[in-house]
Amino acid sequence: MHLIADLCVVPIGVGVSVSTYVAACETVLKEAGLEHRLHAYGTNIEGDWDEVMAAIKRCHEVIHGMGAPRISTTLKMGTRTDRDQSMDDKVRSVEEKLGG
Amino acid sequence: MHLIADLCVVPIGVGVSVSTYVAACETVLKEAGLEHRLHAYGTNIEGDWDEVMAAIKRCHEVIHGMGAPRISTTLKMGTRTDRDQSMDDKVRSVEEKLGG
Amino acid sequence: MHLIADLCVVPIGVGVSVSTYVAACETVLKEAGLEHRLHAYGTNIEGDWDEVMAAIKRCHEVIHGMGAPRISTTLKMGTRTDRDQSMDDKVRSVEEKLGG
Amino acid sequence: MHLIADLCVVPIGVGVSVSTYVAACETVLKEAGLEHRLHAYGTNIEGDWDEVMAAIKRCHEVIHGMGAPRISTTLKMGTRTDRDQSMDDKVRSVEEKLGG
Repeated sequence: MHLIADLCVVPIGVGVSVSTYVAACETVLKEAGLEHRLHAYGTNIEGDWDEVMAAIKRCHEVIHGMGAPRISTTLKMGTRTDRDQSMDDKVRSVEEKLGG
Repeated sequence: MHLIADLCVVPIGVGVSVSTYVAACETVLKEAGLEHRLHAYGTNIEGDWDEVMAAIKRCHEVIHGMGAPRISTTLKMGTRTDRDQSMDDKVRSVEEKLGG
Repeated sequence: MHLIADLCVVPIGVGVSVSTYVAACETVLKEAGLEHRLHAYGTNIEGDWDEVMAAIKRCHEVIHGMGAPRISTTLKMGTRTDRDQSMDDKVRSVEEKLGG
Repeated sequence: MHLIADLCVVPIGVGVSVSTYVAACETVLKEAGLEHRLHAYGTNIEGDWDEVMAAIKRCHEVIHGMGAPRISTTLKMGTRTDRDQSMDDKVRSVEEKLGG
């Protein structure tokens, strides 16, 4: 099952700056070989459901391993069976409507 | 890794009423033996990370199998290493502050 | 415009326990006269769009006023024009399918 | 109060393709003069709390006006009082850690 996801990980109990932990997640996603794109409030991820989910679990493990006692993550997950669609397709589909 | 999650599954392309699909998810969670509680905008779920995630994948499979061509899910996921905490603990912790 | 929402406020930079801040939000919602129900990963809220949104803004102001330097909130918002639906209706609609 | 938000609007009951409705939201945000950036699972928005929230309400009104009987939106909202931070700052902060 192909998945397009949007991951936003918030470590709690490590102070106000969380970018070090977000960067560690980016590294996890890169090492997993998953296509991913950082934006200002999360990261788009695309790939096989099991591979994406394994990487997200690894993100929690790595962030706890860095010393964060608590994590609250918001994850959006989109699947569809009617056709193949990539992250690029989703953005292009909206931009075409805007350009028309 | 113990997980407290909040699952909100939105089937797309099946008309305006989605309760049949949400009910199918409730059945998946029950059959998985996971503690879960329906509320007005999702379902709280508690359990081992892998078991919760397997059930959520099964929810997508079941809903697609019912004919929904597209699903957009919002999932919140909380983990902590500093102490054990159940769904009841979380609610009680807030209610104690309100009662105080 | 009638709104059914689900609010999850995460104060950042105030340590690992956030229940005091969540309790302050519950008080804001109560004082706003909005129907609301705490669950294990947020609070369901029902009411007029502007009143709900004013209360959520007030939550951010109150939590910052308590000393939290940063807040990350996840809010789900449901509106519909085809019929009136309350939080109770939503839960009942799913439960009827489960009972059937 | 300065707000960095992430908006994901899902119209329900209008079939499987939702890009026309997402494009209408982009137009609302543009007309509101708000800085915003489309990604593959939502749109980052930055601006004054009241202006961002007024635009999001307008998105719901416009989408209902286009014929969608039901909308389920997921919104992330970040505020901070310790320092000014833009959407660019957030991305740069993570990228600096990755480059270091």
